[in-house]
Amino acid sequence: MDSEKGDKSADVNQSTVDVKPKKKSGGKKEKPANANKPTANASSNKGKKKETGLGLTNTKDGNFGEWYSEVVVNGEMIEYYEISGCYILRPWTMSIWEMMQTYFDAEIKKMKIKTCYFPLFVSNTVLQKEKDHIEGFAPEVAWVTRSGDSDLEVPIAIRPTSETVMYPYFSKWIRGHRDLPLKLNQWCNVVRWEFSNPTPFIRSREFLWQEGHTAFATKEEADTEVLEILELYRRLYEEYLAVPVVKGKKSEMEKFAGGLYTTSVEAFIPNTGRGVQGATSHCLGQNFAKMFEINFEDEKGEKNMVWQNSWAYSTRTIGVMVMVHGDDKGLVIPPKVAAVQVIVIHVPFKEIDVDKLKNAVQETVKTLCELGIRAEADIRENYSPGWKWSHWEQKGVPLRIDIGPRDIANNQVCVVRRDTGEKINLPMAELGKVKEMLDDVQQNLFNVAKQKRDACVQVTKTWDEFIQALGQKKLILAPWCDEEEVEKEVKLKTKGETGAAKTLCSPFEQPELPEGTLCFASGKPAKKWTYWGRSY
Amino acid sequence: MDSEKGDKSADVNQSTVDVKPKKKSGGKKEKPANANKPTANASSNKGKKKETGLGLTNTKDGNFGEWYSEVVVNGEMIEYYEISGCYILRPWTMSIWEMMQTYFDAEIKKMKIKTCYFPLFVSNTVLQKEKDHIEGFAPEVAWVTRSGDSDLEVPIAIRPTSETVMYPYFSKWIRGHRDLPLKLNQWCNVVRWEFSNPTPFIRSREFLWQEGHTAFATKEEADTEVLEILELYRRLYEEYLAVPVVKGKKSEMEKFAGGLYTTSVEAFIPNTGRGVQGATSHCLGQNFAKMFEINFEDEKGEKNMVWQNSWAYSTRTIGVMVMVHGDDKGLVIPPKVAAVQVIVIHVPFKEIDVDKLKNAVQETVKTLCELGIRAEADIRENYSPGWKWSHWEQKGVPLRIDIGPRDIANNQVCVVRRDTGEKINLPMAELGKVKEMLDDVQQNLFNVAKQKRDACVQVTKTWDEFIQALGQKKLILAPWCDEEEVEKEVKLKTKGETGAAKTLCSPFEQPELPEGTLCFASGKPAKKWTYWGRSY
Repeated sequence: MDSEKGDKSADVNQSTVDVKPKKKSGGKKEKPANANKPTANASSNKGKKKETGLGLTNTKDGNFGEWYSEVVVNGEMIEYYEISGCYILRPWTMSIWEMMQTYFDAEIKKMKIKTCYFPLFVSNTVLQKEKDHIEGFAPEVAWVTRSGDSDLEVPIAIRPTSETVMYPYFSKWIRGHRDLPLKLNQWCNVVRWEFSNPTPFIRSREFLWQEGHTAFATKEEADTEVLEILELYRRLYEEYLAVPVVKGKKSEMEKFAGGLYTTSVEAFIPNTGRGVQGATSHCLGQNFAKMFEINFEDEKGEKNMVWQNSWAYSTRTIGVMVMVHGDDKGLVIPPKVAAVQVIVIHVPFKEIDVDKLKNAVQETVKTLCELGIRAEADIRENYSPGWKWSHWEQKGVPLRIDIGPRDIANNQVCVVRRDTGEKINLPMAELGKVKEMLDDVQQNLFNVAKQKRDACVQVTKTWDEFIQALGQKKLILAPWCDEEEVEKEVKLKTKGETGAAKTLCSPFEQPELPEGTLCFASGKPAKKWTYWGRSY
Repeated sequence: MDSEKGDKSADVNQSTVDVKPKKKSGGKKEKPANANKPTANASSNKGKKKETGLGLTNTKDGNFGEWYSEVVVNGEMIEYYEISGCYILRPWTMSIWEMMQTYFDAEIKKMKIKTCYFPLFVSNTVLQKEKDHIEGFAPEVAWVTRSGDSDLEVPIAIRPTSETVMYPYFSKWIRGHRDLPLKLNQWCNVVRWEFSNPTPFIRSREFLWQEGHTAFATKEEADTEVLEILELYRRLYEEYLAVPVVKGKKSEMEKFAGGLYTTSVEAFIPNTGRGVQGATSHCLGQNFAKMFEINFEDEKGEKNMVWQNSWAYSTRTIGVMVMVHGDDKGLVIPPKVAAVQVIVIHVPFKEIDVDKLKNAVQETVKTLCELGIRAEADIRENYSPGWKWSHWEQKGVPLRIDIGPRDIANNQVCVVRRDTGEKINLPMAELGKVKEMLDDVQQNLFNVAKQKRDACVQVTKTWDEFIQALGQKKLILAPWCDEEEVEKEVKLKTKGETGAAKTLCSPFEQPELPEGTLCFASGKPAKKWTYWGRSY
């Protein structure tokens, strides 16, 4: 139920990469980082870029934390909020969130999963029901104790996740086998009051997510759904966000608190050498069913407990996308989730007829929109082309089309790819090719990200190799004995300034494990290949 | 910003109609009201209805409060939650909410209003900024004071509405006239910890809504948008929920706390004689701009304050729909927002070939779906037709199609209207007419509701007429001097067990007000016609 859960059971003292706002938004008088608007007008449009003071001050390789913070603020995705760990999600973020939601919601509706909405609040009694579960969440639960000037009779918790909110009602609604399966999903906010290293999207005190909760008569049905949902999450990352992920199973230590087993899609950030749990699909087994007495009468009239799943992805997905694709010019948004796929700009030169250029821009946008492309014009006269180039680069728009006097003369436009910087002269009659170009950008973003990720994978078979690879920020694939004590020991031994190493997942696609292979850490016989690394 | 605000500034001691759950959902062992499933099977399908124990135990005219509670629970819209004033919104509710959202969100996106998401939490300092505003909301603000076992340094409020959450950032983002208009909307939950008479949808401690927040350079632009949004709200009620509403302006006493003026759409519940504020569109003027220093430099380089609006509709809309259309058989859902517009049932009789009937049902559903109608089959064999009739009536599905042996023989189906109970034999070749029938149900629901509402309108010109009409649960239209003191006095004088009368709105469509007309309450010269009544 928890894209961020794995990390929480980890050593809370680990220090992660420092991702702090360059400028806090406390003072209203303070200008935002992107408020440096040029005073230049369109009549002098050359060489403005350097004068504007636009562009990032940090680099992705130089100082990743500062870079990330600058990218999400300058790209107008995030505004830092006065309460630490809470962030304002601006329209540039929400359009991505909505596009993902449209895809995912339609897919789960095909699976006959229905939308519901359960309350934000949960009583202490219910929250405490499943012991392992509450142990995992208790330290970060926010409590409402007062309304107006009056103390509440008993404090009320804000949901950190909704298992305990929902399952008393599952118990009420499920009587017989005909009430099964029960398949619900809600889109909502949840609160986890973390104190360590808040990071926009990746680790925030409030975040948006969907949480699916389902109950079945048999374990087989539950198992099947866990993987169906995980596949949707893989597609979300790979086909929409162009981020390669590994599907696998979490270790006992890293699984969802109170569940039977947890599957996840795991992404990797090469620059920091950290894994990031992308989304999780849990089989809860019958643990919650037992605590909440969710029983049904089967066909033979016998009483049985249901099998349950829960699964979620959150706004964290967007942070992973930014970290993977962003570059020293700013955001890079994959076309499939970009609110603006093509920005069209007029580039005036000397005594050119500006209206003619602007008309050509408008015509181009019209044609592209008719082709089903999300295109917009930027024909503002108070910003120089240089300023606009930098602005839209920072916002990560996949393609830019420049139209200048020479383009008009040649009956063409100049298309600039955000991902490669490549410039292509395209005859106006061939604007239909923009669609293919967008597909190509989408595919290229995925390919490049996958190459980078794959280049980080390091197979290690001994402790020394493991430590060396960890130091080199690798995504480590190692044979493991699958014992909890050993994972604990690895964590303890690697605990340091940049955080302990832990298991990320055991991939479903297992390389061959020759008989006699030993665990890199314990020297005992290895049972499986597992990814290890530091993580968000 | 507040569909429920008007009421709050009203006398909190007023007792509204008692709307309590018949059965509280505290104990898990307790059966839901709709758990009485028949043991009968399809082979004996006649006269089952009475045996099932299904159907409502309360009537709309007999005991409205109990009836409402029973209807929303039995119709599977609401489940009562263990925390008082919080309700579980079940899929049957959420599908209506999503359909309204699809309509409204597309409309405001056409107006270039963009989606954002601001945090759930707000600091006390910011919340206090606009004095009138906080006075209106302070008594019902929920406060988080603890996380895990630790006390927070300072308590943090949960948003009752987001003016104070957002506007410090409006101040930051808006610099010059080119940053205007700024037009944002968010879909979210808000919390108002009320202690009086929680009622599903109508008055709950947490509810879902959209809140739009916009800033303009001129009052004219703000004024225009207020009415554009109000028109969308009217359409939402009248075209989607088939509920007639009056557009008008709230009195000074009933306007949004801290705003300049408030417009609203007002519905009316004939059975209880109460008005209900359906949705509000506020012009905030420059009050918040002043407090939050939201200034911009205009074309001449001069500093100006922005003009702001905020507007919202909430899940309350659904409660109004239930109250207006529901009848003694249960919910009545208007076709435009019904998740299932047509339910198709097989009605076996004696030795009939059941498979043949079920095939005909499936074929009918297929044809209807291909016509773009939301149709579903109910061919469960473990429920009798009688049980199904009652079940789908309670759920308010607009049309039911029964298919029995005689229908097969005659190559027809039997269509039953939920609104009128009318049964129509329709040749199978003419299933396309179902679309017109749905349109007709939609229109008829609106017409009937309007007739009933209009029949309640009573023009009163004197205090005695007013009191008499109030006792007769009328929607009172009276000439008024528009003085706050007079409204206060009317409230005081009508305060009683069933609640005080107050202004609902001054309708934009004003009847003629002959010169010399006097205020019904003060005897001073009347300035306008105003609707008065008790309200939710």
